Amino acid sequence: MPVKRVYPVPSDIEVAQAAELYPIIEVAKSLGLSEDDLDLYGKWKAKVHLDVLEKLKDRPNAKYVDVTAITPTPLGEGKTVTTIGLSQGLHYLGKKVFTCIRQPSQGPTFGIKGGAAGGGYSQIVPMEDFNLHLTGDIHAVGAANNLLAAAIDARILHEDTLSDERLARALCPNDAFAPWMRKRLEKLGISAEKPSDLTPEQRRRFFRLDIDPYSITLNRVVDVNDRAVRNVIIGLGTREDGRPRQAGFDITVASEVMAILALASNLKDLRERIGRMVIGTDKNRTPITAEDLGVAGAMTVLLKDALMPNLMQTLDGSPAFVHAGPFANIAHGNSSVVADMIGIKLASGGYLVTESGFGADCGMEKFFDIKCRASGLIPNCVVIVASIRALKMHGGGPRVVAGIPLDPAYKEENLELLEKGLCNLEANIKIALRFGIPVVVAINRFNTDTQAEIEMVKKAAVAAGAEAACVSEVWARGGEGGAELAEAVVAACEKPSNFRYLYPLDIPIKDKIETIATQIYGADGVDFEPAARDKLKLYTDLGYDKLPINMAKTHLSLSHDPAWKGVPRNYRLPVRDIRASVGAGFLYPLCGTMRTMPGLPSRPVFMDIDIDLETGKVVGLS
Amino acid sequence: MPVKRVYPVPSDIEVAQAAELYPIIEVAKSLGLSEDDLDLYGKWKAKVHLDVLEKLKDRPNAKYVDVTAITPTPLGEGKTVTTIGLSQGLHYLGKKVFTCIRQPSQGPTFGIKGGAAGGGYSQIVPMEDFNLHLTGDIHAVGAANNLLAAAIDARILHEDTLSDERLARALCPNDAFAPWMRKRLEKLGISAEKPSDLTPEQRRRFFRLDIDPYSITLNRVVDVNDRAVRNVIIGLGTREDGRPRQAGFDITVASEVMAILALASNLKDLRERIGRMVIGTDKNRTPITAEDLGVAGAMTVLLKDALMPNLMQTLDGSPAFVHAGPFANIAHGNSSVVADMIGIKLASGGYLVTESGFGADCGMEKFFDIKCRASGLIPNCVVIVASIRALKMHGGGPRVVAGIPLDPAYKEENLELLEKGLCNLEANIKIALRFGIPVVVAINRFNTDTQAEIEMVKKAAVAAGAEAACVSEVWARGGEGGAELAEAVVAACEKPSNFRYLYPLDIPIKDKIETIATQIYGADGVDFEPAARDKLKLYTDLGYDKLPINMAKTHLSLSHDPAWKGVPRNYRLPVRDIRASVGAGFLYPLCGTMRTMPGLPSRPVFMDIDIDLETGKVVGLS
Repeated sequence: MPVKRVYPVPSDIEVAQAAELYPIIEVAKSLGLSEDDLDLYGKWKAKVHLDVLEKLKDRPNAKYVDVTAITPTPLGEGKTVTTIGLSQGLHYLGKKVFTCIRQPSQGPTFGIKGGAAGGGYSQIVPMEDFNLHLTGDIHAVGAANNLLAAAIDARILHEDTLSDERLARALCPNDAFAPWMRKRLEKLGISAEKPSDLTPEQRRRFFRLDIDPYSITLNRVVDVNDRAVRNVIIGLGTREDGRPRQAGFDITVASEVMAILALASNLKDLRERIGRMVIGTDKNRTPITAEDLGVAGAMTVLLKDALMPNLMQTLDGSPAFVHAGPFANIAHGNSSVVADMIGIKLASGGYLVTESGFGADCGMEKFFDIKCRASGLIPNCVVIVASIRALKMHGGGPRVVAGIPLDPAYKEENLELLEKGLCNLEANIKIALRFGIPVVVAINRFNTDTQAEIEMVKKAAVAAGAEAACVSEVWARGGEGGAELAEAVVAACEKPSNFRYLYPLDIPIKDKIETIATQIYGADGVDFEPAARDKLKLYTDLGYDKLPINMAKTHLSLSHDPAWKGVPRNYRLPVRDIRASVGAGFLYPLCGTMRTMPGLPSRPVFMDIDIDLETGKVVGLS
Repeated sequence: MPVKRVYPVPSDIEVAQAAELYPIIEVAKSLGLSEDDLDLYGKWKAKVHLDVLEKLKDRPNAKYVDVTAITPTPLGEGKTVTTIGLSQGLHYLGKKVFTCIRQPSQGPTFGIKGGAAGGGYSQIVPMEDFNLHLTGDIHAVGAANNLLAAAIDARILHEDTLSDERLARALCPNDAFAPWMRKRLEKLGISAEKPSDLTPEQRRRFFRLDIDPYSITLNRVVDVNDRAVRNVIIGLGTREDGRPRQAGFDITVASEVMAILALASNLKDLRERIGRMVIGTDKNRTPITAEDLGVAGAMTVLLKDALMPNLMQTLDGSPAFVHAGPFANIAHGNSSVVADMIGIKLASGGYLVTESGFGADCGMEKFFDIKCRASGLIPNCVVIVASIRALKMHGGGPRVVAGIPLDPAYKEENLELLEKGLCNLEANIKIALRFGIPVVVAINRFNTDTQAEIEMVKKAAVAAGAEAACVSEVWARGGEGGAELAEAVVAACEKPSNFRYLYPLDIPIKDKIETIATQIYGADGVDFEPAARDKLKLYTDLGYDKLPINMAKTHLSLSHDPAWKGVPRNYRLPVRDIRASVGAGFLYPLCGTMRTMPGLPSRPVFMDIDIDLETGKVVGLS
């Protein structure tokens, strides 16, 4: 420690496997945690108990830094690498630091993208554990979601075959209500001590959920890139095999359960959010919840360990929480609230560095308006990661497509293209500044970038209001390559933060969406399609209008159209429909089609992955 | 330790939560294992590294005891309770003992059955961990299986859209074969150094798997009782969403991957078995394997931690491995080979107690002919668990149905019914004796059983060839209640074991099936239906005829008809079809319809399960 660097930089897994790690118990002890505060998962991972929060509550918070990016190319601009590298840079400067990032889905790990533990000399280790099961949290989310899904279809079947009386007797065999049933009684405005007190009409209303199969919004999930299950018909077979209906599977990280895991601030909050999850409606359009199905308690039991954040380490041995991985398009794309709440205390006197998905218009806006609202934490600094490559694309450079070699325009100096694309950086800086937080720009340097190009970006960044703009070379040089950036972040954190949310919660849903569209995306206004207009009314009637907004929008443009680069202007944002994640606690307007289940490419990366049977080590994971 | 007993016996979870456990590291140290031999998963569970086998290889094996049962009622006769209780009984006598049992599926835990950690004062603890995710092995099995499933449908899609040339370029972008591709080249009899050496015809044969969608036998899996996904149509939507076909989901524990996890003796063996898995055939009926799809390495990587057995403890602190949970109908229904291989060394000088699923005709026969073949271990004693209730049922007692109150015949002394039913016990004893192993009968005592009834069973058991027949009261009295049984097992283990398999592997498939049908099930012969006859020929042609046989038969009768109780005679066993689990290494003839995905009942047990928010403890798990 720190890892011995060699050039050229070996593959990510070779770098990671060559590192000498600290036993995670040592990392924990260096933070003042005892063995009783942890559940070890092998030598290199541990779950931290939530009750440490109570012990740490009087400590001042660490400075809170969020890493975001300009509007990226489809290749990504190195945001995770920079996040981890910034932490390593702070560590290199002798600062106390804690990194909080998301756990990646196994789908992309075996699909197109490969792993997500950072790269080069800026990684979370062991990268195999990070990219594979970790401590099983995503599996737990899948189990909870799929138990709920099975409960829905089983209930439809049983209600279809049982009379009111037999249904009541099946559900309350001893003429007693289960504790969770009291909540449904209350919701229905029925007062009864025991099931036999119900009138026949009350019994029918209480026991018969009468779920409308066409209303069901809860999909089943699997943590694999499996496009073949995006749209399925289930319930085929015989009378005993359920009732046929169209359904679908999402990737696990796109589930509301995952969004809930990331936003819940404690076990009680988790239990309540799960209970509030709306899975669809009855035939009168009344929402049906997980609580109504009697499955919210069991789902919480499945998630109780998953709620504890996972302690790992960066390549230089500084502590990191890897916890929760909600999708950044239909969910909020930020790691967990509990990890930040604990990390910000453990790093007291230092820095908590976290990351939000995609650009400042996407994950960062949700970080502020959704995650910070849930946690109550106040950020001190935003780091915007930019690459010369992406800025050239925004300046009108040729299309960038994963799997196809880059156009020479991206590998040679081209100040003209770059200058035209700077507008995107400026727009992202302005978005961040709107929240009252100082901004530092990190230029993730590629070896084809020229000094003139870098100077141009630096100048533009500062002119647009950034505190500083620094080159980051963390991929090749680890913490040392992040030292300059770290110094700038330290300085920015000393500036006053005048943090404010973009919108208050108590304005109409329509106004909240229009605020985001005009203030963040630069649209002239919003066009609500009929389905979306219906939902504005429905969700207001149902009392969901106090929830924050989680826009489901492409990350490849500031607008809704992935082809519009730079800073799109003179357009109206179309909102096709609006959905509600009542348990997670947000509404998500759909601007375009959101993919919630990726597919495998013609040559998936799983084809390179194997076990070296001599050493027992994983090979080919990237 | 041991747990303080109270009467009446509280609920399973109350007993378990009241117990004071040893930290699992202490249990491991008492076995001579060091911290470096383990991966802790919290304080109460640990995975044991497989390389301890090398260190322990010179130790003599412990005595090897398998617990099986008579033909059970649908309620089960307490086999797991007796298994754990026998271990506690041996511990009570001061013997060294190790228990190896299966990890239960979460499906039944939340469905009808509840947990499977034993019960009363005979349990593996913590029972919440045992019944919930444990260390994530079942999730890993699901992830590996579903990656393979996604790989199949993705390959069908990509082959459908790409020319031979583009397919070849996609799969070998640098004109080089991946290591696993060499195996396919060899299989096809093609010699080539690099893809460009292939003739167009060879290129087509090599790169185009040409999977017949109607031949695919690999189902997707989920660890939930979800009958609605038994039969589904997948691949609906657009051109990009796969190709429509009928498919299905099994519960994870019914998968071949789970059977492989249970039978693999080391990492290399695991890798090879996965590579051999046949997922269907091409359009010329040639088998297509996981290796052909290039996904066997990644699947092994997903399973590398799952292969390590999970160390837990019984209520009296003796060590237990909980590892693998293959279904007992279409798979072999026994815990893992690696757990037994390690446990039998760790318990050297003492006893390894394991359990096989269902009656002696089912799990025990597979234990001997499949599991012991894979492990090379030789059993010393078989314990057959019997209940007076089940014997009365075999004597012609009223139907026993889960969820419906028991007929009084089962709660009052009825020597006549009992005597008529003893034939089933005698038949099961004879089945066990056929393998050359001494038999002890354990009468799992219910509080309605009378002394006269018990004496009658004891006498019949010894007359049928059992070494002894003892009352077991382990549910109510823990190890003390199992002491008499333990003493009988100790005595039986001193007898010579003349262990022999039922059939040699090198006889025709048909002869192996007929041997099991006539020698174990008491059938007069076997009727092979046309599909089964086709498979006899096909599998012989393919060279699968040296595999052992894993009968897929109801466990509710010695015959194929669950309604035929006692000892069915004068019948022929119908074999509808035969399937191959080439990776697991067995053929499974289907005698009737096997359910590989349970459903949720009208009142699933998940409705009782919740978190106590005051204590953070699980309530309602049974």
